[in-house]
Amino acid sequence: MTDQFHPSAQYAVTMRIECPHESGWIAKITKTIAELGSAIGAIDLVKIRNGRSIRDYTVESGSVAQAQKVVEAVRTLDGVNVHFVSDNTFLIHLGGKLEIRSKVPLKTRADLSMAYTPGVARVCRAIEHLEEASFNLTIRKNTVAIVSDGSAVLGLGNIGAAAAMPVMEGKAILFKEFGGVDAFPLCVNDHDPEHIIEFCRMVAPTFGGINLEDIKAPECFVVEERLRDLLDIPVFHDDQHGTAIVILAGLINAMALLQREPSEQKVVIAGAGAAGTACAKTLTGFGFTRIVSCDSHGAIYHGRDVGNAPSKRWLAENTNPDNESGSLKDVIAGADIFIGVSRPNVIDRNDVLKMNPDPVVFAMSNPDPEVAPETVHDIVSVMATGRSDYPNQINNLLTFPGIFRGALDARASNITHAMEVAAAHAIANMITDEERTRDYIIPSAFHRDVSRRVATAVVQAANESGVARRTPKVDRVYE
Amino acid sequence: MTDQFHPSAQYAVTMRIECPHESGWIAKITKTIAELGSAIGAIDLVKIRNGRSIRDYTVESGSVAQAQKVVEAVRTLDGVNVHFVSDNTFLIHLGGKLEIRSKVPLKTRADLSMAYTPGVARVCRAIEHLEEASFNLTIRKNTVAIVSDGSAVLGLGNIGAAAAMPVMEGKAILFKEFGGVDAFPLCVNDHDPEHIIEFCRMVAPTFGGINLEDIKAPECFVVEERLRDLLDIPVFHDDQHGTAIVILAGLINAMALLQREPSEQKVVIAGAGAAGTACAKTLTGFGFTRIVSCDSHGAIYHGRDVGNAPSKRWLAENTNPDNESGSLKDVIAGADIFIGVSRPNVIDRNDVLKMNPDPVVFAMSNPDPEVAPETVHDIVSVMATGRSDYPNQINNLLTFPGIFRGALDARASNITHAMEVAAAHAIANMITDEERTRDYIIPSAFHRDVSRRVATAVVQAANESGVARRTPKVDRVYE
Repeated sequence: MTDQFHPSAQYAVTMRIECPHESGWIAKITKTIAELGSAIGAIDLVKIRNGRSIRDYTVESGSVAQAQKVVEAVRTLDGVNVHFVSDNTFLIHLGGKLEIRSKVPLKTRADLSMAYTPGVARVCRAIEHLEEASFNLTIRKNTVAIVSDGSAVLGLGNIGAAAAMPVMEGKAILFKEFGGVDAFPLCVNDHDPEHIIEFCRMVAPTFGGINLEDIKAPECFVVEERLRDLLDIPVFHDDQHGTAIVILAGLINAMALLQREPSEQKVVIAGAGAAGTACAKTLTGFGFTRIVSCDSHGAIYHGRDVGNAPSKRWLAENTNPDNESGSLKDVIAGADIFIGVSRPNVIDRNDVLKMNPDPVVFAMSNPDPEVAPETVHDIVSVMATGRSDYPNQINNLLTFPGIFRGALDARASNITHAMEVAAAHAIANMITDEERTRDYIIPSAFHRDVSRRVATAVVQAANESGVARRTPKVDRVYE
Repeated sequence: MTDQFHPSAQYAVTMRIECPHESGWIAKITKTIAELGSAIGAIDLVKIRNGRSIRDYTVESGSVAQAQKVVEAVRTLDGVNVHFVSDNTFLIHLGGKLEIRSKVPLKTRADLSMAYTPGVARVCRAIEHLEEASFNLTIRKNTVAIVSDGSAVLGLGNIGAAAAMPVMEGKAILFKEFGGVDAFPLCVNDHDPEHIIEFCRMVAPTFGGINLEDIKAPECFVVEERLRDLLDIPVFHDDQHGTAIVILAGLINAMALLQREPSEQKVVIAGAGAAGTACAKTLTGFGFTRIVSCDSHGAIYHGRDVGNAPSKRWLAENTNPDNESGSLKDVIAGADIFIGVSRPNVIDRNDVLKMNPDPVVFAMSNPDPEVAPETVHDIVSVMATGRSDYPNQINNLLTFPGIFRGALDARASNITHAMEVAAAHAIANMITDEERTRDYIIPSAFHRDVSRRVATAVVQAANESGVARRTPKVDRVYE
């Protein structure tokens, strides 16, 4: 199921190799590399001296182990000398991925007297007089915090604050690249939700919004809910709402393609963590009224023991109108839509065969989906995954840059359900009726127009929701 | 005493002015401006139409009131039309002064697979395995937090977190411009030292160091002392130690110029806040053994009621060996050195006359010094202030960029007294024996070599202090 042995850039190494400067040697080296299944990305000459040549070979492999095998194989070639090997993924991380730059010149005393003392005092006094001015006169205008405690990072689990930083830095560059949003990562060394809430409350005057990231459930629910009440800047947990919005976008197009009504669909959701719960709430709000959510104990229904987590109590009380019980493999019978936000291979072809005809299957576990697309391709109507190497990739990158771009431009005090639905429609509408097929229900994450369209829709919804505190000219929403 | 009516860039406005396109009109407008004492910075033609010209006049004034008078005067000129007026200091603050940029490309899926998922997971695991690796593989390598609660900002006092941001953003650009350090401002909405300590503890895994800024005394002492014990990254309160270091640098050169020994000098310090206390500690550590510190109640001596503040108890127990009591104006008698870090005009010419012959006077209250230089010029040997329009400006900008540049390069776990003294010597040594005069004991804040020289000295001292965790090649200290 995994593409571990498919050569990719994430496992690229650059070897500096010295060999005799005679014809036939490059072929010998590349043959050795190719025979192990790795791919040559580039060969750059460094220098030629004393009848020997030195070249940098950039080689993509399918795993660290495979890359190591390649290096060993080249090292053992008679007459060949490997000077050093560098790992490209580690190389680009050296010193971190972000820098902080001044937007104003600072070359003369006159510059200093405006950007710093004494002139800056006038700007400080203006904000002291009217705090709202900070949204114009400081980085609040365009800057969000990415706050994580590193407790649920990618598929790695609880790796802690320091180890979570490379992901949060990556998120920050995505914010800038796709939404023009300045984002700064703040990884905190504490898993207590009360402490994370207090941390965000304290730092709020610095930022125009807070993106919570990779905080595990159920703590993430408490943190987000309380902060949304406490703060007058938007707070958004991307693992919850980003995922829910892009799933909704995909379903909007799937329903249009199949000409079905949300209220008539039975939806089974595997997973009742951050993404699964938010997805159930968002779909319920959109009109999908027959949802059955499953956790590791099976279907969540009214009356089942769900512990103390308010999020599961919400699911028990607000979904599953027929009070279905049993395992995931039981309740999937007769379903029209399956949404997986859980673990690899929790269902198989037989389970999908139990669904109503022409089912919709979104299997988002990554890299290994809840069911392998190859095994059900002939019996599903629409299939989506979280992977880039299948059609219909459900990717949060479609959502968060545009959501925050819009929220900042509208100076929204909150991100409402209406703004989320507007974002989902904007994503769905990137694909025209003519373009829409079972293999194209969601645009590419690299489509440069998505963020702008999402932002424009979010600004409008913010105005309609009454949470906008500034109305940008529509043609200047995205600058 | 203030230069309020001296035109400067901090009070610059740009007026877009329309008038007949005939000779004589520019002269008429500039004459109106000049007669009110303001200065023309630039006149830029925007366009000419229908026999009228539109130009942008940039005009520097000495105060907001004066700028307003100029605008009114121009508006009332017959035939002249002022389209709009913009305030240049506010203009450069629009949207804040910082941006966050990616240092890595993000244009292709291969880029994304290294900088973000899935490749980033390998980098996360490496840090999870060895947290120390975060100093190489994340922004910790070159990034410091500037943490303030906005309780003691410039001369403005307690203006709060949001209003303090423009100053902290300014500090961040100084860090980058002069030390190549990435610095990010975090203004916190809480004055409780325990909360500020907890905040810094939580966010520490994100940063390579913490610069505390504009937190009022005595809270700043508690916060810094506790964090220095708690964290393994350098914590530095610039208002304390930055000031103390640059004062020490000035005194090192003053002593060399006058061929005096620190231990033989009686030093009177006016002010027992953040800067005054740190200054007394640093000078004591350097060998100035006869220090008398004064607060608003006069000299601090052993046995005086100083309340509960540990910082004042330290002064009572470790300075003033002759146990002098009385007001500032009493104890200044017989002093060799006066250091003012307090309020304008706390002493006068008569007080300076009570000092020993050829006294050294550092009057750092800004913009109005403790004693006006003009009134004592003939009776002091060396005079320094915090102002840029007198000789010998004592400016923290000489210190903090180089201190953190060095601390980051050495990956220091702490900033020791030896590192601070090394920084002071490096600043003092910028001036050669031949160059040193009573009007040149401290280099210009705009001297580009200072940070590099300070950083090099700090790295060496960090190694000698045993707090360095990495030894950079000397020629690569400052890249």
